Amino acid sequence: MPALHAFDTQTMEIDQALFANDAFYLAFAARDIDHMDALWARNSPVICLHPGWPALTSRAKIIESWQRILSNPQQKPIDVYNAEAHAFAGAVAVVCYEELDGNVMVATNLFITEGDRTVLVHHQAGPCGQPPPRT
Amino acid sequence: MPALHAFDTQTMEIDQALFANDAFYLAFAARDIDHMDALWARNSPVICLHPGWPALTSRAKIIESWQRILSNPQQKPIDVYNAEAHAFAGAVAVVCYEELDGNVMVATNLFITEGDRTVLVHHQAGPCGQPPPRT
Repeated sequence: MPALHAFDTQTMEIDQALFANDAFYLAFAARDIDHMDALWARNSPVICLHPGWPALTSRAKIIESWQRILSNPQQKPIDVYNAEAHAFAGAVAVVCYEELDGNVMVATNLFITEGDRTVLVHHQAGPCGQPPPRT
Repeated sequence: MPALHAFDTQTMEIDQALFANDAFYLAFAARDIDHMDALWARNSPVICLHPGWPALTSRAKIIESWQRILSNPQQKPIDVYNAEAHAFAGAVAVVCYEELDGNVMVATNLFITEGDRTVLVHHQAGPCGQPPPRT
């Protein structure tokens, strides 16, 4: 039953990406740099676009940026909602909304598989003036 | 020579994605909705995050949004620079900077292959406070 198998695989990938997306925001909320580091791909290009920042495209600079953000005592708590996953050729994009101190960002997190792990290769967040209602 | 073949394939994909990225901004600059429409994937999920907007995840709504943007007489000319491509599992992300009326956005465009065509599956642009110098 190849069709069912293909469906199962895609469902599994989407579930794994949503799970990894939760892990990403749990690491953010817990200011856990080790978990944040472990989530980023090691054998693939990586891209991180924090709101307002220029693109970071080196793993070392991305992890350093997260160290600065997660160790910043002024960093506001983050609340994430309406995560929705979309599977492309071998990658899954999760789009979600991030609320920080009353401001809402829309974010994309792109995941691939490395060995048996679902890892992040791309994160971009930017302001969202008209966020949708929480569902 | 499988290694060389793999390298060539990846190089080709990257070149094709950069070419498709140019086509995307040419369609934007020329206000050419037919070319814009043709660039978006037809057999894959698609996601478009215009600056400040909530996520659009239906092809019809994405094309409608471009119709509104490209037919808006107030829409400023766009100038794109520092495009850089990164290949992931079957997809290529192009990160670049968009200058509109003195304001700079950082954008990600994600491309996959549909048949023999390189098509867009994801676009996200947001303000960039400290853009890098043009290279």
